[in-house]
Amino acid sequence: MSHGTGFRYTRTVKFYETDLAGVVHFSNYFRFMEEAEHALWRAAGLTVDRAGADLGWPRVNATFDYKRPLFFEDEFTIVVRIDTVTARTIQYTFTILREDKTIGAGSMTTACAVRQPDTMRAVEIPADIVPRLKAAAGQSH
Amino acid sequence: MSHGTGFRYTRTVKFYETDLAGVVHFSNYFRFMEEAEHALWRAAGLTVDRAGADLGWPRVNATFDYKRPLFFEDEFTIVVRIDTVTARTIQYTFTILREDKTIGAGSMTTACAVRQPDTMRAVEIPADIVPRLKAAAGQSH
Amino acid sequence: MSHGTGFRYTRTVKFYETDLAGVVHFSNYFRFMEEAEHALWRAAGLTVDRAGADLGWPRVNATFDYKRPLFFEDEFTIVVRIDTVTARTIQYTFTILREDKTIGAGSMTTACAVRQPDTMRAVEIPADIVPRLKAAAGQSH
Amino acid sequence: MSHGTGFRYTRTVKFYETDLAGVVHFSNYFRFMEEAEHALWRAAGLTVDRAGADLGWPRVNATFDYKRPLFFEDEFTIVVRIDTVTARTIQYTFTILREDKTIGAGSMTTACAVRQPDTMRAVEIPADIVPRLKAAAGQSH
Repeated sequence: MSHGTGFRYTRTVKFYETDLAGVVHFSNYFRFMEEAEHALWRAAGLTVDRAGADLGWPRVNATFDYKRPLFFEDEFTIVVRIDTVTARTIQYTFTILREDKTIGAGSMTTACAVRQPDTMRAVEIPADIVPRLKAAAGQSH
Repeated sequence: MSHGTGFRYTRTVKFYETDLAGVVHFSNYFRFMEEAEHALWRAAGLTVDRAGADLGWPRVNATFDYKRPLFFEDEFTIVVRIDTVTARTIQYTFTILREDKTIGAGSMTTACAVRQPDTMRAVEIPADIVPRLKAAAGQSH
Repeated sequence: MSHGTGFRYTRTVKFYETDLAGVVHFSNYFRFMEEAEHALWRAAGLTVDRAGADLGWPRVNATFDYKRPLFFEDEFTIVVRIDTVTARTIQYTFTILREDKTIGAGSMTTACAVRQPDTMRAVEIPADIVPRLKAAAGQSH
Repeated sequence: MSHGTGFRYTRTVKFYETDLAGVVHFSNYFRFMEEAEHALWRAAGLTVDRAGADLGWPRVNATFDYKRPLFFEDEFTIVVRIDTVTARTIQYTFTILREDKTIGAGSMTTACAVRQPDTMRAVEIPADIVPRLKAAAGQSH
């Protein structure tokens, strides 16, 4: 694993992201992680939608540990880092902060894949993608 | 951990649960797990919304491993089981099936908690809840 | 406009469909209407996903009038009817009920269309679709 | 109705807002309108969440006319204006633009209300709210 400050993505909680408990619904943290991932790709001059002919990036695993709730209109920051990389998968780690407080932390592992009739077949990640993502995240190689 | 067949919850994929990759968005599996959890509570004659004065059930952790995609109008079944229980937390495990194929598997750990100004304070789970959930899931105690 | 009892679709409010006001978020009524529309198609032996080569059903207009809120775990029924039909569009009307109370009512107008680079081009609706939908909704022709 | 340039709110389409047709799901336009409404409130130094003791802002009607689709990572702008105001309701109008193209237009009518056991009771809008919203939207009174 390489170190670095990570890429920072900031936005505000929307009304429709809250639930009857008055806090952000736990499923939305997975959407927040994806938003930060895609913002990192854009910062690297990339997009998951056109990364190559027929390539997609299905999730292999996603996990999140919840520490504190987020409330409507809270401004929060997600720090994304590239963690373990294999020939066919990228693991991202995420920390969500509101000012100096940790809201929670999670990770997502994504495969590089081509579509098959009922599934996806993992293939090798094009060579330039990980270096560009790491550079955008401020991580040494 | 006690064994048993688990509680089964079945429904169909909605159009708005798919994304531009043509499959169910990965974040929705966390909503599916919660739906199955709440269906288990109802089968036990309980509801997370009125389990006791001021009690809530915030998530401590949620995780999911993805094996195969789900498509629009697929009928799928979620099998829920009660796994590790502590004085203040319940861990559920989930397996998602489409006919005889495993779509994926995950878990959620939930705390019994009372609301505090900026957070939740974990408290002991009322004594009757876990036995009733386990009975509804067909699990021996 | 033809008359008839309409097609009925019933389900229960999910936790993640509520917001911090403790009621179903207003945007979800548009998802409920679509669920009922697609259930009507399935009842007619059809699906919006494979209705013909390259055909899609983009929305032209959607509207809803809100009368009473829905709460977590409320069971509600949506009554769908086919209203105005033109060569290229279908207008559905919807009434949402909880027991004997009207929660609200709305409509959606959908075009039959083929995808163009940056938009959709409306085309004629295949001849068998509207009669089958009306039959499934119990409406005379 | 007063005239003016309106308040502008800009953001980018998220991956989870698309559906299998490859475009933004039609229900999300209602969330976009709400986001723009709440951004206008914040620009006016207000929030719908703490506008007064026990006050809420339930929807009376919401409608949208769709002209062109939005795609993943499209940047779009919502122009919000205050339209018809009564003692107890505010009607907002919205136009969604991507560069010089109109994506669609809609409106929402919202009541000022206090919570009752199974419904909301409309009450008079506090006197300072509409003038502040109109000022933030650049509208003459």
